[in-house]
Formats: sequence, structure tokens, C-alpha cells
Amino acid sequence: MGHITDEKKLIRSYGEKYKEKLSKIKVLAFDIDGILTDGKIFYDGNHLEPNRNFHALDGHGMKMMMELGFVVGVVSGGRGLSLNKRFRDILKLNFVFLGNEDKRDAYKEILKMGYKDEEILFMGDDFIDYPILKRVGFSVTVPSASYEIQEAVDYITHREAGDGAAREVMDLVRYARGMKAPTFEF
Amino acid sequence: MGHITDEKKLIRSYGEKYKEKLSKIKVLAFDIDGILTDGKIFYDGNHLEPNRNFHALDGHGMKMMMELGFVVGVVSGGRGLSLNKRFRDILKLNFVFLGNEDKRDAYKEILKMGYKDEEILFMGDDFIDYPILKRVGFSVTVPSASYEIQEAVDYITHREAGDGAAREVMDLVRYARGMKAPTFEF
Amino acid sequence: MGHITDEKKLIRSYGEKYKEKLSKIKVLAFDIDGILTDGKIFYDGNHLEPNRNFHALDGHGMKMMMELGFVVGVVSGGRGLSLNKRFRDILKLNFVFLGNEDKRDAYKEILKMGYKDEEILFMGDDFIDYPILKRVGFSVTVPSASYEIQEAVDYITHREAGDGAAREVMDLVRYARGMKAPTFEF
Amino acid sequence: MGHITDEKKLIRSYGEKYKEKLSKIKVLAFDIDGILTDGKIFYDGNHLEPNRNFHALDGHGMKMMMELGFVVGVVSGGRGLSLNKRFRDILKLNFVFLGNEDKRDAYKEILKMGYKDEEILFMGDDFIDYPILKRVGFSVTVPSASYEIQEAVDYITHREAGDGAAREVMDLVRYARGMKAPTFEF
Repeated sequence: MGHITDEKKLIRSYGEKYKEKLSKIKVLAFDIDGILTDGKIFYDGNHLEPNRNFHALDGHGMKMMMELGFVVGVVSGGRGLSLNKRFRDILKLNFVFLGNEDKRDAYKEILKMGYKDEEILFMGDDFIDYPILKRVGFSVTVPSASYEIQEAVDYITHREAGDGAAREVMDLVRYARGMKAPTFEF
Repeated sequence: MGHITDEKKLIRSYGEKYKEKLSKIKVLAFDIDGILTDGKIFYDGNHLEPNRNFHALDGHGMKMMMELGFVVGVVSGGRGLSLNKRFRDILKLNFVFLGNEDKRDAYKEILKMGYKDEEILFMGDDFIDYPILKRVGFSVTVPSASYEIQEAVDYITHREAGDGAAREVMDLVRYARGMKAPTFEF
Repeated sequence: MGHITDEKKLIRSYGEKYKEKLSKIKVLAFDIDGILTDGKIFYDGNHLEPNRNFHALDGHGMKMMMELGFVVGVVSGGRGLSLNKRFRDILKLNFVFLGNEDKRDAYKEILKMGYKDEEILFMGDDFIDYPILKRVGFSVTVPSASYEIQEAVDYITHREAGDGAAREVMDLVRYARGMKAPTFEF
Repeated sequence: MGHITDEKKLIRSYGEKYKEKLSKIKVLAFDIDGILTDGKIFYDGNHLEPNRNFHALDGHGMKMMMELGFVVGVVSGGRGLSLNKRFRDILKLNFVFLGNEDKRDAYKEILKMGYKDEEILFMGDDFIDYPILKRVGFSVTVPSASYEIQEAVDYITHREAGDGAAREVMDLVRYARGMKAPTFEF
């Protein structure tokens, strides 16, 4: 109907641009704070456990990509009951590495699962993500990331973190691979 | 006074553009997460029940459209006490279908209420909404929806989800039908 | 230093444009949901009391305007402990009218306090605010308000609701009146 | 790869522009509400303690700047358990001054620690911050601050408060000083 938003047309067209690199990707790994959330950590006046916002589009996207055969997981310095609840119990991700500010050990675990650097896509937004972003087959960050992080990655999303930025990347991968989303028909 | 925002002028003018299709609409059905909310699901550090933000403009709009004679309801994969509270107890919607990832059964319930496809407007944002969006008389999504969803619908809102996007559509319907909002006079 | 944001320069310049009408204003009355908040009503998964976000800039602005001699208050259809806490106990506003969907009675109470229509500024965003917006000396709404509300008012803010929109209007009044903000000196 | 966002390129280039003033800075002091938060104060329907959102980028930035040898702290009119938790227990800032609407005493405490005006950077957004903003070596505010505050400062961030605005300033200081962020290597 000719009124698709420019943002979505652009992402669709980028599927072609990044086709070669994305054709090798088997693993999708995401940082949590500032990637799957808007980076905001909510402190309740009295309770002292940080809380977080996740986006339905990202959650649906992760389930969709697992259905399409990708290995999907999170690598985060954060920890907490709610992270386990969302990523282990509800979304049932293939891997959930929490609680390490230095993320290199978690990355080695992914390699031990039998994947090579060029088969891994990683999305992160800060300096603790830097060594992984420099190494993976396809690296992604968000508009709020510092200059050096943006300089280091293959792709910077149009959506801000926590507002569907991770889903944008999952759609990008699908477009590059010519994969249809699993939908129902009447 | 000549300073109405461009966004609102545009929506007003679109009332004319979509007049024919919208003239048949009797039922307004909305997805919840990512349509009536900003798509964000808030996880409290310790409590494990997801929480949601709704917008006052959308709630007022739903009450207004029921006053104007429309049948208004929600069709969502989510569930929970707060959804019942808001949509059944406070807004007293005409129908509230919760807890089904596959929304086709809920849609059949709407048809059983005696309405035809072309009399139903549906607003949704993800692939689980796709079969209904393809079938209804007027289909709507938001700027954050994936390319294929945007491609499938009649109208994409200017407002982002949870920020008055649903109200934008209710206003669009009113303008297409030449309906005045119910207001008080001194 | 020449880098003041265009938005703030514009608001400053509008002080001159609306000088005549604003020179008569003695009372500043604000709707709450969608004006002093972003319109979002947060439903906790289990607790069923709606929660709200307020902005520090608006709160500081209200205290500043009372210091400068204005009568400041709220007129809202909402109610709840947290509204009393914020507006009665913390900000100590001159009037707090809560819990009436029809706001005409609250408006009559303001008139009974001895003020005339042309001495009252009111800021609201939806049809329940319409009769007061049509009557006061200076009427204000926000970018998310429907066409008919925007058409009815004297001024539409540049800031979105809950993001300093009310403060924008308080600054506009100060600029029109040539009033300096109360500040400390070393 | 040529696609760094314009915003980040600009901030990088400003490092050069503000080089002289920033070369003297030893202390980074931040207001909390409206600088390290989005200014929103969340009132739970029943609990009456205000709650706040902080941004992971700002928190990481503060730790990074302390590692790089800067003295980092907060000066806020607010108080509460959660502020202590975040700034004293988790981020372990060099100074945490809470609960004074008049911030001049806190500023004198910073001077007593042995620093001169020109060695202090302060970031604030409202009139209670004005006397300190006028006095420090480098003063910063955000796009939502009033005209007079914007007029008084050396630098206005591109990011909105609570969305990485404080981190933008920390990056600016690093760029002006030619400091590399501490990162890990494989």
C-alpha cells in the first residue's frame, strides 16, 4: 500500500548489503542491559533490587529465530531472579550466561558448543562487550553506544535499545537469508 | 489558531482517504502488548509477574467509541490479573479475549457475535496477529512492526505504540464517519 | 554561548507573542494524567492500583510559580493516595481537585475563590477538559491531544506530556511577564 | 565502516573544541533527578516513596572515569535508600551529597577536598543548580533545561537526561584528553 515506514524499508534493503557475512551466522548472542532493555535500571524507593523493562518484539523475535533453527542466547554482567525467569523459564533460550562483568569466559563457552567466530552474531553496547564485538562474525550495537563501540561494529541499529533494536537485527538476518517468518493461516 | 501539529492535521485528512473502508466498521479489536502498551514488559527484581503501561488517551478513546455505538475489545496472548482489572472492571469493554498465542479462535468468537470481516477493524503488531490482519475490513499496525506486517495492513499509525497509537486510529474512524466526540458544555 | 536549543529559544520568543493574554493570568490549573504525567498508567501484575510518573521539572516549576505569587493547582478525574501525597503533602499546591470525570464543578470552585475566566490558565489533553479549555483566559494542550482539542486551545507545547510540558508553560508565563526565576547566589 | 551516528561523531569532534577547559578537570559532579535520571519520579499507587530510573551507560561511565583517575560524585536535593544503594554501595562513588535543596554547602565540601573551581565539572538541570553551574570550570545541562540554565552553561548534551546524557559528557572529557577507555583484549 506504499506507506511502509522508511526505517523498515531500509532494514529490508540492508538484508542484501550484509548478505555474505550474515549467511554464515548460526548463533545469535545478546547483551541484556542497554540492548534487550532501554538501559534503564529502576530502583524502587525501598526495595533495593534493580528492575528492568524488556520488549515484547524482542522476546517474540527470539522465539521465532529459535523456530527457524538459530541458536539464541544472552551474555550479561547482570544477574537476578527476573533475568532467569524471562530468559530461562519463559523464552527458554539455548544459553543464558549471567553475572560476569568480563564476558570472555562466556564467549569461550559458546565456542566450546562447537561454533566458530564467523558463525556468531553478538550485540552489545559498552566497553565490556568490546573484545567479543571485535571477534565475532557479525557485530551490532545501538545508537546510544560510545563512538569507539560504534566504530568497532558491523551494524548500528536504527531503533534505540529496548525499543525493538534486537528485533531489528533478527529481521535483518531473516531478510539476508530470505527466511519467511512462521505465521498461521486461516 | 493555525498551530495544530502536522501529525494531527494529517490524521484528520486521512479520515477522508479511508472513508469507504471505515464507513463499514462496527467492531474495534486491539492487540494489547505493543499496541495498547509500548511493548515493554517490566520485570521486578524479585516478583516474577510481568507488568505493563497503558495510556490514558487510549482508555478514554475506548470509552468514547463505545458511547458512540462501536463494539470495542481486546485480543491478546497475554493474561494476568491486571489485564482483567483494566479491560473488564475499569473500561468495561464489550469483549476481552486473553491468553491465546494463536488468536484465530478469538477472532471466530467475534464473528459468532454476528459481525462480518469487513465490519471489523483490528490493530496488531506481530506475526501472531498476521492471519487476523490479513482478513479484517481495516487492519492497522505501528511504526515498530516488522516489514511484512507493515506490508500487510491498511494503515500504519504515526504515534508509537503505547503513546496514543490506538487513540490515533479511533480518531481516524471518527473523522472518516464525521462523528463528533461527546463533550460537555457549560 | 550560542548553543541554546531551538526549542528553548522558541519558547522564550513566544513569551512576547502571548504577552497580552498571559499578563492577566493569576491561576495555573493543570490536568494530571497526560499533562503532568506521560499519560501512562502502570498496572502491576498483581496489585491493581494504577501508578504514575511525574517529572521533577514540573514539580520544581510549580513551587517556583507559587513563590512568584501565582495560585497553582490540579484538576483531575483520577484519585489515589499517591496523588494526595505528591500534590498536597510534598508540593503543597494551592488547590487539589481529584476524582471528578466532569471537571466543571472543580472549575466553579476556582471561580468561587475569586478569580475570573481571563485570570485562569488551564492545561488539559482530552475531551473531559474541553469545556474548561474553551472558557479560560489561556488554554494549553500537548502534541498527543486530538485535533479538536488542539483546535480549541491558545498554545500547544513542544515538549510531550510528562517530559516537562507543564514546565514549558510555566516558563512561557515567566518570559511573558519578564519574571526572573528565584535563584541562589554564592 | 562509515556509519557511526552523526550524534557520536559530533561529540567526538567537540572533544577538540572544549580541549582547553576540559584539560583542567579533575572532579566530575552530577545532579541526580533530571541528569542521571529522566527526571521522572514514579509514585506507586499505595507506597509513597518515589522511585527512579538510572541508565547503565551512565553507571558504567562513572566507574570508567574513576578507573581513569577522576574524582566522581553526586550532589542532589533528593534522598532515600535507593540513592544510597546505587551511588554508595554499588558504584562506590568518591562523594555522595544527598538531601539538600540548597546545594552550595555540598559544593563547599568539594572545594574543601582540595579542588579549585576550574578543576570541577558540574552537570545540573534546574535553578537550584544555578549557583554551582555559574562557578565551576565546566558546566553542563540537558535539552530539557530552561532557557536561563542553557544560557549559563558551557555545554548542552545531545542525549536527553537519563538516556545517556551523563555518559555523553564523560566521553567528551575522554576525547578532549585523548584517553582510551579501559577495555579487555582476548
